[in-house]
Amino acid sequence: MTELTPNSSFSLKIRLELPNRAGYLASVTQAIASMGGNLDEINLIDRTREMTVREIVVDTSSTEHSDKIVEAVKALPEIKVLQVSDRTFDMHQGGKITIGSKLPLRGQGDLAMAYTPGVGRICRAIAEKPEEVYNLTIKQNTVAIVTDGSAVLGLGNLGPEAALPVMEGKAMLFKEFGGIDGFPICLATQDTDTIVETVKHIAPVFGGVNLEDISAPRCFEIEQRLRQELDIPIFHDDQHGTAIVTLAALYNALKVAKKSLESVRIVFNGAGASGVAVARLLRQAGAKTILMCDRQGILSTQRGDLTPEKQEFAVSATGTLAGAIQGADVFIGLSGPGLLTPQMVRAMAKDPIVFAMANPIPEIQPELVAEDVAVMATGRSDYPNQINNVLAFPGVFRGALDCRSSTITTKMYQSAGAAIASLIAPSDLDRENIIPSVFDPRVANVVAAAVQRCAREEGIAKC
Amino acid sequence: MTELTPNSSFSLKIRLELPNRAGYLASVTQAIASMGGNLDEINLIDRTREMTVREIVVDTSSTEHSDKIVEAVKALPEIKVLQVSDRTFDMHQGGKITIGSKLPLRGQGDLAMAYTPGVGRICRAIAEKPEEVYNLTIKQNTVAIVTDGSAVLGLGNLGPEAALPVMEGKAMLFKEFGGIDGFPICLATQDTDTIVETVKHIAPVFGGVNLEDISAPRCFEIEQRLRQELDIPIFHDDQHGTAIVTLAALYNALKVAKKSLESVRIVFNGAGASGVAVARLLRQAGAKTILMCDRQGILSTQRGDLTPEKQEFAVSATGTLAGAIQGADVFIGLSGPGLLTPQMVRAMAKDPIVFAMANPIPEIQPELVAEDVAVMATGRSDYPNQINNVLAFPGVFRGALDCRSSTITTKMYQSAGAAIASLIAPSDLDRENIIPSVFDPRVANVVAAAVQRCAREEGIAKC
Repeated sequence: MTELTPNSSFSLKIRLELPNRAGYLASVTQAIASMGGNLDEINLIDRTREMTVREIVVDTSSTEHSDKIVEAVKALPEIKVLQVSDRTFDMHQGGKITIGSKLPLRGQGDLAMAYTPGVGRICRAIAEKPEEVYNLTIKQNTVAIVTDGSAVLGLGNLGPEAALPVMEGKAMLFKEFGGIDGFPICLATQDTDTIVETVKHIAPVFGGVNLEDISAPRCFEIEQRLRQELDIPIFHDDQHGTAIVTLAALYNALKVAKKSLESVRIVFNGAGASGVAVARLLRQAGAKTILMCDRQGILSTQRGDLTPEKQEFAVSATGTLAGAIQGADVFIGLSGPGLLTPQMVRAMAKDPIVFAMANPIPEIQPELVAEDVAVMATGRSDYPNQINNVLAFPGVFRGALDCRSSTITTKMYQSAGAAIASLIAPSDLDRENIIPSVFDPRVANVVAAAVQRCAREEGIAKC
Repeated sequence: MTELTPNSSFSLKIRLELPNRAGYLASVTQAIASMGGNLDEINLIDRTREMTVREIVVDTSSTEHSDKIVEAVKALPEIKVLQVSDRTFDMHQGGKITIGSKLPLRGQGDLAMAYTPGVGRICRAIAEKPEEVYNLTIKQNTVAIVTDGSAVLGLGNLGPEAALPVMEGKAMLFKEFGGIDGFPICLATQDTDTIVETVKHIAPVFGGVNLEDISAPRCFEIEQRLRQELDIPIFHDDQHGTAIVTLAALYNALKVAKKSLESVRIVFNGAGASGVAVARLLRQAGAKTILMCDRQGILSTQRGDLTPEKQEFAVSATGTLAGAIQGADVFIGLSGPGLLTPQMVRAMAKDPIVFAMANPIPEIQPELVAEDVAVMATGRSDYPNQINNVLAFPGVFRGALDCRSSTITTKMYQSAGAAIASLIAPSDLDRENIIPSVFDPRVANVVAAAVQRCAREEGIAKC
């Protein structure tokens, strides 16, 4: 496996006791640096005439790397390692989200309004006029983050409990970037019918449903059926979030490479939920030549193992990715680590665009083909051009909730993609700057505005 | 219908423009007082040489009463009513609860720990060791507040959307009094099997389930089946919350009346979920003589219309409440407004105890029999001795979650009741002080401690 650069997803906190004399702290930082650890904060916890206690934060590249660094520090003379903790585990203790009251309950008067008997009048008002649920309850701003734990990140079928930390993280992102109250719903079933029924039964509280980490091909049917049967927006982020942001990045990458969406030859590796959704959206946006590969190679009409979704993209050609990619203008990877070789990239057309989005390890390490590509993008934050769903879903739901759109349409995906791309001014656009940062505060606003505009044009906004 | 005293569940905010001269504000407050409105805050919003703008908060006793007060103010000369709003509706705009992040997301480092790629290691840790879900996620402190909207407060079958304001209020109470993260689950089904299945399917996220406002007799089966099929605590608050607090109040009322639980004759009016649960708990706590009535009169073995739960309390006697109550020591009402007459109370034994708990209008107005009873309690906060479930459920779940009890037992109900009763010191105990206030900060702690103690004694605490 390719070694990654140290990053805070592997971050240690090491508490040390050192002699209070010059040189000891330097020996520690030197040991860490020589092992390739990335020093972050150093805090002084305690100091006497004889000794100091310090807490050092170190980013590493893997658990094994962390272990080696700790060993190196422990081997230093006269230095005592008091405690080592993993900051990612520390921050997850007790979970990452919480329910809060918007109003204080300071006395009987507050209770009588927020709860019985006053709340009874609110209940009656909703019973008499059902759409009041959007004004008088949390429904107007609440999204169910639904998973069955069948495809947790790139890790596979870990089940609903193990998926919960991702859904909590998603809830944090919804709040931070969209001001939306997202709540995790992790289902103890992986049966399509049961998932559809369960989500329908819990829908009254929610203004929208974000499907997450549900494996293909079930995810397609689940989303489609929920869209038919519920009158609130349903959005499978692994599909459409990825598609929106990929389209945004591709719009700008094509400008850099001076090519057009209609004329480029696009090769996909990965035909799961996100691969299929990205390919569909690119086609709807005008892409004419798309060749998709999965683990078995090109999706060919001659294969008997294709799901209906894969059949949409089947071509007469057969072969492997290595064959498919010859002369291609664009590579879109939503597959696994290291599956794209430098040779393959060099076999692409002039000024190729490579989106190597496998997480956390891309299809190719960007360094390996830096000189061979016009534009390179990944899913990672430690390289330029991060293609991150966080750019899409908070704004998509913000827009849909604000105008009470009954659904989310393909036109919205396209408009959202264009809106994200538009945030890179022509003068700022270059091969290392095709897409805004997830921390750009304009992103959710322009996405929400695009979604609302579409909803009004399509006549599906309810307010 | 009996007229109630003004209270903040009917609270108006009236914005007025008055001439800036002596006497005008007094004319307004006088008009409000003469109509029986209860003045709360008066705020000065604006003032010029000619006029002042003030906002006046008035508690009233009903919507009609509110209208009359506004009319009276509008009729005053030279006074302009700028705006009238209903404070209960105001506070419900957009709902009452919100999801928050426990940690900030300030940069890529935070994202990489709380979300991808760092969160992947947390997911794997839970997949490898399932009980880690209690340490590394919100499950340890999260309770589903589940309803089907079939018995919303005393208002009937209003459906899941109209029930949501109650569940949000419940979530506020869970947080305020138990530090618990409660989330509303309002089900779009009233089918017993479907409710059981749906709750099972969403259980992975939750450390407990609070059932709420589900009509009898379905609520009994739903609770029982969920208790059998899930390994987290299930608690139907309308049943057991009411039972715990009633038992607590009765323990102390019996001390005041100098009677014993074993020897008193207890008559119930109301044999719904809460009536049955209270009767069961009193019996388990030692009560020997219980006579229950429903709308058709005494639950008699000669009746053919009794559910299995009602059959538990069927006696050979027949007749109405008026007959049943003759010579009774204790009346427990969980029925409807005004169903207990002063004559009935006067037909009870010497020093009778009357718990008239129908909400919001009790079975009898306490004023009517103040001199005839040893102890009177209601569900209302504007009379002494409020029997309020808020005294029980936050502490019950706090205790159960803290020791990871797999279930909640009858022994816990009894211990919780005794713990609540114990907070009234013998020297403070009198006929108007048999139960602590919901704002007494000791309540949840002693209840939680009682529940934990039972869980450990019964061997069902997991930590």
